[in-house]
Amino acid sequence: MSVEIYGKNACQEILKTKKSIIKAYLLEHSNQDFLNSLKKKNVFLEVLKKQEFNQRFKGNHQGIVLEIEDYQTLSLESFLEIIDISQNPLLIMLDGITDVHNLGAIIRTAEAGGVAGIIIPKHRSAKITGTVSKISSGAIEHMNIIEVTNLRNTLEKLKERGFWTVGTSLDSDETYDKIFVDKPLCVVIGSEGKGMSKLLKKVVDFNVKIPMIGKTNSLNASVSAGIIIFDILRKKQS
Amino acid sequence: MSVEIYGKNACQEILKTKKSIIKAYLLEHSNQDFLNSLKKKNVFLEVLKKQEFNQRFKGNHQGIVLEIEDYQTLSLESFLEIIDISQNPLLIMLDGITDVHNLGAIIRTAEAGGVAGIIIPKHRSAKITGTVSKISSGAIEHMNIIEVTNLRNTLEKLKERGFWTVGTSLDSDETYDKIFVDKPLCVVIGSEGKGMSKLLKKVVDFNVKIPMIGKTNSLNASVSAGIIIFDILRKKQS
Repeated sequence: MSVEIYGKNACQEILKTKKSIIKAYLLEHSNQDFLNSLKKKNVFLEVLKKQEFNQRFKGNHQGIVLEIEDYQTLSLESFLEIIDISQNPLLIMLDGITDVHNLGAIIRTAEAGGVAGIIIPKHRSAKITGTVSKISSGAIEHMNIIEVTNLRNTLEKLKERGFWTVGTSLDSDETYDKIFVDKPLCVVIGSEGKGMSKLLKKVVDFNVKIPMIGKTNSLNASVSAGIIIFDILRKKQS
Repeated sequence: MSVEIYGKNACQEILKTKKSIIKAYLLEHSNQDFLNSLKKKNVFLEVLKKQEFNQRFKGNHQGIVLEIEDYQTLSLESFLEIIDISQNPLLIMLDGITDVHNLGAIIRTAEAGGVAGIIIPKHRSAKITGTVSKISSGAIEHMNIIEVTNLRNTLEKLKERGFWTVGTSLDSDETYDKIFVDKPLCVVIGSEGKGMSKLLKKVVDFNVKIPMIGKTNSLNASVSAGIIIFDILRKKQS
């Protein structure tokens, strides 16, 4: 299985990694920097005319597409083997994020905020696609994505391993800035429409909310994630 | 001039306001709640079959479109007349946000975070369209949008009126959580690609950054705005 990565930023991030590139497509007379890097890396290259390019690749490709080995997710077990729990890592669990744009945006935000891994369910979740990679601005190449079959069991396993699990829900009494940061943490982010599931709300150690004072009072999932992740980072750094 | 508002959330927000609705379009056998509200409001209504609806309205309309009077922006002068400076309002100035999705997302985030007004330049900025309204989930109906011809002059005028002006720039020494909140504030958010302009960086009272610890280290403009706005709100509430 392979996946196509569109656009300059995302492709640039791929080139920084050791990811194996199956093939590169370049629009003729464009992206000279990429051409040089690709030649240096001995990547199999096809240069296309504008019309051919647009016929073959729909969407905002910016004249460069890389075909790479499919993105590899991790199992919870293999992730727990590589992570150093003594460093109090922060994990984000996504409950019901089905939109690829949201998933990509959350990965980007989480990577910039030092999140150690993102847990997604195998079912009822957006899949890792080229669009997710592009929206993440290539951040996905530096992020551990952990795919699990059951979010509840995963929370239980994380608790056993010493993680504190935190839900986010508008009807909580506690606010997000009360989350302590001197422990390994897993914060669950729900979907915009439905929030996180009732079951998970009961399984987590505690729930927090982001207080809002407007009239519409809803935030995009990636903005919610950003506010919580960067508040945790702020406290770790202060 | 009129503008078309697509989708359930955005249309629901319109119905909560006193905004004058020129005409409503409903997909037949759908959105019964809307049908009742529209009838109560004596709105001129057209019910369309699926095929007609899709032909007429492209995009994700969810079976409801409202045609309303064009969104009215404010001048700086008229905004300053209606705002109570003793309440230490927070303004957001957008420098070079040209993407309608970003503009809509920032409006949504700002409204939930209690921002008093958003300043956009007349040129080099995304315009207020139906898409912006939809992406904002209707939050735009509760937000003062101030359109100005010159951002630099606007910052100078705000300073004269007692506002503290804050730039955001990755190369600042100070971090965003040091912003004081017991003063009227105007925070400038730049575009993702270019950041805020060098000129404005010099005009503002001081600049702050959001510290990041990842490898890609870039945030979506609405996420950056969210982190700063909600940190200010957190401090105001604590």
